[in-house]
Amino acid sequence: MFDFKYFTPTKVVFGKNKEEMVAELIKEFGGTKILIHYGTGSVVRSGLLKRVTDSLDAEGIKYVTLGGAVPNPHLGLVHEGIELCKKENVDFLLAVGGGSAIDSAKAIGYGVFNGGEVWDFYDNKRKATGCLPLGVILTIAATGSEMSDSSVITKEEGLVKRGYNSDFCRPKFAILNPDLTMTLPDYQTACGCTDIMMHTMERYFTNGGNMEITDALAEGLLRTVKKNALILRDDPNNYDARAEVMWAGSLAHNGLTGCGSDGGDWMTHKLEHELGGLYDVAHGAGLAAIWGSWARYVYKDCLPRFKKFALNVMDVENKGTDEEIALRGIEAMEDFYRSIKMPTNLRELGVNPTEEELVDMAHKCAVGVGGKKGSAKVLYEADMLAIYRASI
Amino acid sequence: MFDFKYFTPTKVVFGKNKEEMVAELIKEFGGTKILIHYGTGSVVRSGLLKRVTDSLDAEGIKYVTLGGAVPNPHLGLVHEGIELCKKENVDFLLAVGGGSAIDSAKAIGYGVFNGGEVWDFYDNKRKATGCLPLGVILTIAATGSEMSDSSVITKEEGLVKRGYNSDFCRPKFAILNPDLTMTLPDYQTACGCTDIMMHTMERYFTNGGNMEITDALAEGLLRTVKKNALILRDDPNNYDARAEVMWAGSLAHNGLTGCGSDGGDWMTHKLEHELGGLYDVAHGAGLAAIWGSWARYVYKDCLPRFKKFALNVMDVENKGTDEEIALRGIEAMEDFYRSIKMPTNLRELGVNPTEEELVDMAHKCAVGVGGKKGSAKVLYEADMLAIYRASI
Repeated sequence: MFDFKYFTPTKVVFGKNKEEMVAELIKEFGGTKILIHYGTGSVVRSGLLKRVTDSLDAEGIKYVTLGGAVPNPHLGLVHEGIELCKKENVDFLLAVGGGSAIDSAKAIGYGVFNGGEVWDFYDNKRKATGCLPLGVILTIAATGSEMSDSSVITKEEGLVKRGYNSDFCRPKFAILNPDLTMTLPDYQTACGCTDIMMHTMERYFTNGGNMEITDALAEGLLRTVKKNALILRDDPNNYDARAEVMWAGSLAHNGLTGCGSDGGDWMTHKLEHELGGLYDVAHGAGLAAIWGSWARYVYKDCLPRFKKFALNVMDVENKGTDEEIALRGIEAMEDFYRSIKMPTNLRELGVNPTEEELVDMAHKCAVGVGGKKGSAKVLYEADMLAIYRASI
Repeated sequence: MFDFKYFTPTKVVFGKNKEEMVAELIKEFGGTKILIHYGTGSVVRSGLLKRVTDSLDAEGIKYVTLGGAVPNPHLGLVHEGIELCKKENVDFLLAVGGGSAIDSAKAIGYGVFNGGEVWDFYDNKRKATGCLPLGVILTIAATGSEMSDSSVITKEEGLVKRGYNSDFCRPKFAILNPDLTMTLPDYQTACGCTDIMMHTMERYFTNGGNMEITDALAEGLLRTVKKNALILRDDPNNYDARAEVMWAGSLAHNGLTGCGSDGGDWMTHKLEHELGGLYDVAHGAGLAAIWGSWARYVYKDCLPRFKKFALNVMDVENKGTDEEIALRGIEAMEDFYRSIKMPTNLRELGVNPTEEELVDMAHKCAVGVGGKKGSAKVLYEADMLAIYRASI
């Protein structure tokens, strides 16, 4: 096992109607002038935004609003948000939505606090020294950004998608009301479940040290999401299943499922980021489309973990060689993806890149990770290209 | 499932030699004049206290020291610490030790911040509005106080042991170096493992709502501690096993294993508190001595949970009636306690209360919980007395 740091300061308030506490929580964390940042309109249509602004009005908390955060949120809107915050002297950000609104708000927070070009952080050119404080009302269980140190932004020019991680952007509070996720299309629900599982699996498949307790928590989380994703496929309004998935989403990416490991593999995410930048596909679906090809490419180099995954998460029978068990685990995971209507290759994802585009994605991916990355297996540009080719 | 709040702001720094970071962490959280609070001398003898004061000296951080926190820490020392802090203008507390030093430091923090008689909080007469900030260097994996909102103090007059809970006392940082627990006597290690498991089991055995993910995490944690407690019985210097138990100890009591339930049962703890107040027994051993009698008294009222515990934690065969399975789970847990040399009744604990003392403990326990308490089964004074009697 490796040494680790664990820091999850976000105050989580979980349950029905908990968005009613938003003004109280903003006051608790010292916000006086708020930027409410949201997505493409569903929080307006559902009436949630109005309920939030009514709460702030009632408590005399001033605010401005900025909508328009899209999946794979854009740098242009981040710049717009930074200027608005400066002009309006905003001292607290409230993201209302899913990972896109939260990640975009985090980037705005970095920009306002640190000055200069905010893309520098995502481009590995500078390190942030702080971030404007941030609260979240979550409407999509998926990215875990409501408790995480992570933010992913897409630069429109060249369609470059990059993440930046620091404890500064961990939200002060997160309001998690499972009811708010009821209106999601089934496809988005399945994408969210995939993203949640992948956040844990990226940490699970390592050749770095592991802890038994971390493995036990990770496997328990994966089994829970797998089971409840199937419940939601058949019964999307099941509150308890929504709650299980929503809480799993936060725990999957707040650091808990990686304690004691080397930090994880993360190459499925990196490979998907290039897809997401180029094609604007849903992140969870992109992950599902890539994972199987990645897993088959690397599993022999990380056989004990793939075997453990097969037995403890996918309930594969403990029969045959380790390789056979590991492969049956990968197949079972792909079967699960198909059962919740997730793609297991790029065609099923609905994209059909040319060889030239595959080469370009592999190159951009390799550049983005500084040449090589991975813990289950260290991948170089040629490996990345091979996985992209296998995923068609 | 129930709504819940989850708030674990403590920055955990886990691994070898991490006590070297103490000055840096104190500075990060704004401490300028420190009270170092510790126990009965082992941190002096081991050289840990000297390493800590050397670190603070090197960074020019001023401090005073106060030793003497004993198991079931005393109110008298808390008063002494409060006066010392006021006199020396202390603005940050550093507890070096186990739960006794941490709980005592938390009480000192309440006293300094709020003024007035600090016992009022423990006696349910006032609510704290804050607490002096606190950091921890942990040397015993057991109480989980390094991340918890809890503090338990014993008032010498009448030997009354009471807890007080609030988020204000959650430590700012916790340094967890498994090597620092290596010198513990085997008995204390086993007591710690018992306490850790009991913190999770108190939350697990409820008739309130539960979440599948919380159950999965709790069961994974319990299996991990059970396995590693046996490893440590035979190989006390096993670093990885020390690490598993140490991290489990923090997670068992920071709130994670109770999300979505009604808060838990906690009657084994309450029954033990009276024993601990009267006899000054080790907390973990007291819990083990009471648990079996409690479990046999209540299991029929909480059968699904006792069955689940038997199957998923104690690996009992799924055969026979639910009652039979539940009882075999209780027996298996008692066998486990015996295997790590923990008592399963008061005689084995080394105490032999008179009937009058049992009556007195049951009465004090009932008063302490406001007349009744419990979720697996609500217990009144007569029930408490019956469990005490059965535990002889």
